[in-house]
Amino acid sequence: MSQEHLFLAASINGTGWSGRSARWPGTSPRRFADPAHYVEAARIAHRGVLDAVFVSDHPALSPNAHSGPHHVFDPIVLFSAITGAVPDIGFVLTASTTYNSPFNLARRLASLDAFSGGRLIWNAVSSFNPAVAANYGSEPLPPREERYRRAGEFLDVVKQLWASWDLPDELAPDGALWDEAEARPIDHHGEFYDVRGPLNVPVGPQGHPVIAQAGASQHGLDFAARHAELVYAPLPGKEVARDRARLLTERATAYGRDPDGIRLFPGLNLVIADTREEAYRRHEALQGVADEEGLIQAFLTRGFGVTPELPPGVGPDDPLDPAWFPVLTAEGVFGTVGHSLAVTELVASERLTLRQLVRRVDGSHRLIVGTPRDVAEGILDWWDDGLVAGFNLQLPVLPDDLVRFVDEVVPILQAAGATPKSYDGSTVRERLGLPDPRLTTPGTAAVAR
Amino acid sequence: MSQEHLFLAASINGTGWSGRSARWPGTSPRRFADPAHYVEAARIAHRGVLDAVFVSDHPALSPNAHSGPHHVFDPIVLFSAITGAVPDIGFVLTASTTYNSPFNLARRLASLDAFSGGRLIWNAVSSFNPAVAANYGSEPLPPREERYRRAGEFLDVVKQLWASWDLPDELAPDGALWDEAEARPIDHHGEFYDVRGPLNVPVGPQGHPVIAQAGASQHGLDFAARHAELVYAPLPGKEVARDRARLLTERATAYGRDPDGIRLFPGLNLVIADTREEAYRRHEALQGVADEEGLIQAFLTRGFGVTPELPPGVGPDDPLDPAWFPVLTAEGVFGTVGHSLAVTELVASERLTLRQLVRRVDGSHRLIVGTPRDVAEGILDWWDDGLVAGFNLQLPVLPDDLVRFVDEVVPILQAAGATPKSYDGSTVRERLGLPDPRLTTPGTAAVAR
Repeated sequence: MSQEHLFLAASINGTGWSGRSARWPGTSPRRFADPAHYVEAARIAHRGVLDAVFVSDHPALSPNAHSGPHHVFDPIVLFSAITGAVPDIGFVLTASTTYNSPFNLARRLASLDAFSGGRLIWNAVSSFNPAVAANYGSEPLPPREERYRRAGEFLDVVKQLWASWDLPDELAPDGALWDEAEARPIDHHGEFYDVRGPLNVPVGPQGHPVIAQAGASQHGLDFAARHAELVYAPLPGKEVARDRARLLTERATAYGRDPDGIRLFPGLNLVIADTREEAYRRHEALQGVADEEGLIQAFLTRGFGVTPELPPGVGPDDPLDPAWFPVLTAEGVFGTVGHSLAVTELVASERLTLRQLVRRVDGSHRLIVGTPRDVAEGILDWWDDGLVAGFNLQLPVLPDDLVRFVDEVVPILQAAGATPKSYDGSTVRERLGLPDPRLTTPGTAAVAR
Repeated sequence: MSQEHLFLAASINGTGWSGRSARWPGTSPRRFADPAHYVEAARIAHRGVLDAVFVSDHPALSPNAHSGPHHVFDPIVLFSAITGAVPDIGFVLTASTTYNSPFNLARRLASLDAFSGGRLIWNAVSSFNPAVAANYGSEPLPPREERYRRAGEFLDVVKQLWASWDLPDELAPDGALWDEAEARPIDHHGEFYDVRGPLNVPVGPQGHPVIAQAGASQHGLDFAARHAELVYAPLPGKEVARDRARLLTERATAYGRDPDGIRLFPGLNLVIADTREEAYRRHEALQGVADEEGLIQAFLTRGFGVTPELPPGVGPDDPLDPAWFPVLTAEGVFGTVGHSLAVTELVASERLTLRQLVRRVDGSHRLIVGTPRDVAEGILDWWDDGLVAGFNLQLPVLPDDLVRFVDEVVPILQAAGATPKSYDGSTVRERLGLPDPRLTTPGTAAVAR
């Protein structure tokens, strides 16, 4: 099975990625706390026949009361509620392997996959935020290596649970609703978890939810190579994307896994306006600066957790040297390794100037600032090159910019044949052309079918 | 605020309380695994203007493959999905204080309460099932005393979290979305939990979800007196109900709590048919026996985990002696203390014969076997006496018996003025006439209002 169309998701966290979105003109500042806001965003995405809506998550209140919080309602509840109200649209649900128990999360995700008819993608994260750790009595945050060891065992357990009760269509010969071979304890005893099983939710409409992964440190890549079907990564440039694909292919192969079962799904931040000039001005306003010089200054000041410094005599129109960007590999620094790496690689491969860079990346994700046609062409360029399975769209102000994307960009993508004009009832796994885990996972009950 | 109408909920676990319901004539045996079944049940309850639907829960697969499992989909997902599809109806959601973390559960319940507009009742259970413990690496099951000590601390933490971010309607003077006094860490450090907070979901539409409780051991009663607003109890007879109310009033008062903030909400099992004789035959068929003698024999065989034995010379038409019913207080016995106590008390207070008892209790809950009018009168009798806030209806075959209740019993209750003919947009807390916790809980931000 191969992927037939570009897979598009839209982030619906808070009121958009811009820290100014909550108080953007025309937006109610309390919108982030209104459940109807999220249902409406999903309805707009559905109108554009997008494949999914996405939420990232940190289970902790943002300490910044001046920008709208990105993580309010629990993603499991949020998407379950939307499931009942909006058909077809898929869900990329972020949930932590560090702060859930495997039985509870396996059951909740399997339940949502059943209620949505196979629309669930689980973005498995190991959590890196000390404020989150403090809400779970696990301060200090466990070291990255331990979090990923735990995450690996967590995935092993969850996948076994998802295959542990394969409810047949027919009753057993003695009239039982299932027989022993179809509901088997997993009897897992590992370093972090002891879980008997079986799960009390049967194997679901797509075998199990599609597994996505977001971390891009060395531990994160390793985890992705073993478990991820969809890799949500900051890939700001084509060479970065090719490099990531190569790395994942190598590592997956080393684990004996078919690398064709992994799809790249980078973030894509958008600033859309009628003209390019208007888009530039909107970009600056969204960043709270007056002009392009302000963007450059803000980049230098904020950097990526550590301020890069331009050497004496180097200006914003000189090519940047990647050596100026310290990579955050130290444990305990707030921020992720993968984001810094992505920008460093972009600078190295494209020899960008700082003036170019500030219009090309946002939070280390690829950024397009321009007209609806600029955006569509930027999307089609990568899709036609076969670089990615699709994009996770990150809009600065919700729902306004999502409306604009759906009304003005989607028709161009549809006209190009890249995205469909209606839903066809398929699961998100089918839309991604990913294999059914019942046919590929050794040791599951269904492998003999 | 007082309670204006009888509060009715309907259990929608599996395909009904009868072990034979999954293969009852006219029922698809796979119905328990079909999400649409649960949404349909909620729609039927909504048609009858019932206050809520209820699910009990054990996160473990039933070992009995011959009866439909009662606990499949996770209740948080199930009710969140129904929230998006069915308006008005409330949710009694069972979730364990032993097998969830307080931050996760507080956030998930607050999220669902927000998405449903104040329709959530949390049935807090400490879990007593060793098969569940084995799914969470906590074998052997912790002793009851420890589970309730943990449950008490869990409730203290969750209530503090629910009051920790009180998002005001107005922006702060400096334009911030909230200020420090409105989002406060709880900094809890206890025997079982360390939780910093605040919760990243603001105070919800009913202050916090209504808290229900089901255990009826001495530890359970104590927990109810401290925390419960709704007590879901097996109360098979009026004297048992009065006794329970007295006990709860005494204990709540001893804790300095106003006992008026506690409502009794017993289970009520129903077998409904056009005539009383037909109802008797249906009752027998649902129990898998041929006649009333079969019911009597089944009761003696199954008992309540320990077989009661009639002494020599005593027949099914002689009054029972409560001393014949051993009460299961030993730790580790599968079953709950409260259920056995309730039947023992019923036998003691009403001097029932075994022949009477088998038509009066089911699983230690009150049972009515009869016509729609018998059922309505049995409900109105207790409501008119002021014994209970309402009932949790347990129907043997879903959705058939729920349809019958809604179509044939509800009109009688409505004609008597006991239940409303339409929803008025109130929260479940308002329907129960329970006080807003923001006005009664000392130490919350809202107490000064």
